[in-house]
Amino acid sequence: MHTLHVELGERSYPIYIGRDLLADGALLAPHISGRQVALISNETVAPLYSEAVRAALPPLDLITEIVLPDGEQFKTLQTLELIFDRLLEEGHNRSTTLIALGGGVVGDMVGFAAATYQRGVNFLQIPTTLLSQVDSSVGGKTGVNHTLGKNMIGAFYQPQAVLIDTDTLHTLPERELAAGLAEVIKYGLISDEPFYRWLHEHMPALLAREEASLAEAIERSCVNKAEVVAADEREGGVRAILNFGHTFGHAIETDQGYGNWLHGEAVAAGLSIATRLSSQLGRVPESEVLALEALLLRCGLPVRAPESMSVEQFMELMGRDKKVIDGALRLVLLDAIGQAVVRADTPLADIAKVLAHSQR
Amino acid sequence: MHTLHVELGERSYPIYIGRDLLADGALLAPHISGRQVALISNETVAPLYSEAVRAALPPLDLITEIVLPDGEQFKTLQTLELIFDRLLEEGHNRSTTLIALGGGVVGDMVGFAAATYQRGVNFLQIPTTLLSQVDSSVGGKTGVNHTLGKNMIGAFYQPQAVLIDTDTLHTLPERELAAGLAEVIKYGLISDEPFYRWLHEHMPALLAREEASLAEAIERSCVNKAEVVAADEREGGVRAILNFGHTFGHAIETDQGYGNWLHGEAVAAGLSIATRLSSQLGRVPESEVLALEALLLRCGLPVRAPESMSVEQFMELMGRDKKVIDGALRLVLLDAIGQAVVRADTPLADIAKVLAHSQR
Repeated sequence: MHTLHVELGERSYPIYIGRDLLADGALLAPHISGRQVALISNETVAPLYSEAVRAALPPLDLITEIVLPDGEQFKTLQTLELIFDRLLEEGHNRSTTLIALGGGVVGDMVGFAAATYQRGVNFLQIPTTLLSQVDSSVGGKTGVNHTLGKNMIGAFYQPQAVLIDTDTLHTLPERELAAGLAEVIKYGLISDEPFYRWLHEHMPALLAREEASLAEAIERSCVNKAEVVAADEREGGVRAILNFGHTFGHAIETDQGYGNWLHGEAVAAGLSIATRLSSQLGRVPESEVLALEALLLRCGLPVRAPESMSVEQFMELMGRDKKVIDGALRLVLLDAIGQAVVRADTPLADIAKVLAHSQR
Repeated sequence: MHTLHVELGERSYPIYIGRDLLADGALLAPHISGRQVALISNETVAPLYSEAVRAALPPLDLITEIVLPDGEQFKTLQTLELIFDRLLEEGHNRSTTLIALGGGVVGDMVGFAAATYQRGVNFLQIPTTLLSQVDSSVGGKTGVNHTLGKNMIGAFYQPQAVLIDTDTLHTLPERELAAGLAEVIKYGLISDEPFYRWLHEHMPALLAREEASLAEAIERSCVNKAEVVAADEREGGVRAILNFGHTFGHAIETDQGYGNWLHGEAVAAGLSIATRLSSQLGRVPESEVLALEALLLRCGLPVRAPESMSVEQFMELMGRDKKVIDGALRLVLLDAIGQAVVRADTPLADIAKVLAHSQR
C-alpha cells in the first residue's frame, strides 16, 4: 500500500492506494470519529462492494445504506434531496460520517451532501472507477449539475481520507477504464512530460489492467493533481490548468445531454482539440498532436467532437462555462508537452478554426 | 455611521451600522469586485428598497433582480433552485456578487446560494429586519430548512460586508420588531449583563423606535455575537451558547409549521423556558425568571410554549435537533445572568418538569 498526503493545512488528508483496501477495517476506523455512518453508493457498485465495506466498519450505533440510481443524469439537486431525506429520517446528526462508494458521480454528490448536511459533516471517499480515483479523489470539488451547465452548484470540501482499492478496477467496464485513462493522460500533458512518455510506453499494460502499472499511473496522477491543488485550493490561479481540455469537453457533454458521452470521453476529445489549438498557435509540434490522437484512439477514446455540433453551438456553450470571466474566454493551452498555461487572449477566430477542424 | 470588524482571518469583513446606508454607493462599490450583480429580495422588501439599492450600484455589465416569495415556509431547496435558474439563465459567472436585501430568510438563502453557486461567489448582506441585523449578519450561517428540521441543509460562508441601515426599521411591522428584540435580549442573557440591564431600562425607547437606542442595541448585539463567532467560527465549542433558548424554540417552530410562529417569538418562549430551567437547577434566582418574563411580555412576546404541544412532542422534536451529539441532549443554560454554559448532563426529568410548567 502507498500513502500520499494532500497538503491543505488543517484540511490535509491521506490517500491510500493498494489492493483489497475497502475491506480493511484498520484503515477505515481512525477516520470515523462518531458512532453513525451513512454508506452511499449506486445500484451498480452497491451489489459488488457494499457488503465488504459494511463488514469492515467499526462498531456503530447507526448505519444507513443509501443506493442511488447510476449515471451522470442523476447528479442533480433532486438526487441530493433523496440523500438528505434519508439522513434526516434515520436521525443522522452532525457527528455522522458519510462514505462515498462509487465513481465520480457518487463522490461529487456525497461530498456535496457532506459539505451541506447540517452545515458540514465528515466524509470518506472510496472511489471505484479509474476516473474518480485519479480525479475527484484529490481536490475537494463537490457538487451537482444543472440543466444549464455541469457542476454549477457545489462547494470546495475535503474528505477525511480517500481509499483507492485497485482491485475494484477489475470489475470496471472497458469503456469506463478508457474514460479514466483520458484524465491520466491529461496529467502527463499539463505537468509531467516523463509521465506522459511513460504512458505511451505502458499503455498496453494499463489496458490489460496490470496491477503494478495501474497503481503507478494512479499514484503519479494523484501526486500531480495534489501538487497543483496544494498551490491553489480554491482555483484562484494555477489550479485552472487541471481544466485542460475540459472547456471543450463540458460543451460536448452539455450538448449531448449528460450520460450519453462519458465525462472522460468528452475530455479525450477536448484534450485533442486543445492540443491541436496549442499546435495551431505554434506552441506544440503537429507531430505531438498526432501522437496524442494515436494514444487516445488506442484506448478506444474519441478525438473529435460529435458531428452534430456546429462551431456556433460550441461557442455558445463554452460562453456559459465557469471559465468565462467578464467576457473573456479563459482557455488552458500547452506551451509544451508537460507544461500548461491559462490564457485569456486566444483569438476567437483560432478557436473557431480548431473547432471546424474537429467537425471534419 | 459605526463600523465593526468581524475578525475571521482571511474571511474577516466589516459591518456598517447607520442611517441611509443602503443608498450609499461609496459604501457598496468597494465590496463589488466584478461587473455582475444579482440583487435578491422578497415581495415585501423589494418594493420598499430595491430601487434605492439599484441606483446606488456602481456601473455594471449585468444586474439581475430576483424577488422571492416572503416567509420562512419558502426557505427551501426549491426556492434556492429558483435563484440558481435565474443566475444561470442570465449568464452570471464566478465573478458575480449576490446582494441579499431583506430579513433572515433572504439572508440565509442568498448566503447559501452564494456558498454553492459555481462553488462559491461573493455576497453582500443588507438586512432589513432587526432580527437579521443582530443575528444573521454575524457568523456566516447560511442554509435552508427541510420538512424534518430547520436549517438542516447549509454552509458556513462569510459575506464581503454587511450594511445595516437603521432607517429600514421604520417600515418593520411591530410583531417583527418584537421578534428581533428577543434575540437582542438573548445577547444580554448569555454574555453581557450590563447590556441586559441597559435593555430593561431602554425598552420603552426601543419599542418607540428611537434611533440612538436602536443603533446602540444593534451594535452591542453584533459586538457580542462577533466575539463569540471569532472564538469559534464553525461551532466546535463556545459558539453553541448563541443557541440559548433555541433548542426549545426550534421544537416549537417545527411543531407549529414554519411561518406561524415567528423565529424570534419561538426564541422568546425558549429563552423563558431555558432561564426557568437554569433557575430550577439552582443557578439563577427565580426573581430573574420573572423579570425576564416581564421584559418579554412588555415587548408583546410569548413566554410559554403553545398549549397544543405535549412534553412528549417536545422531547421527540428536540432529539432531532443538531445539538444532539451521540444521544446526549446538549443544552445551553445560564450560570448567571450574562454567563451561559453548554451542558450535556441535564437530567431528562428536569427538562420534562420545566416543559410541563410551560404547558400550564
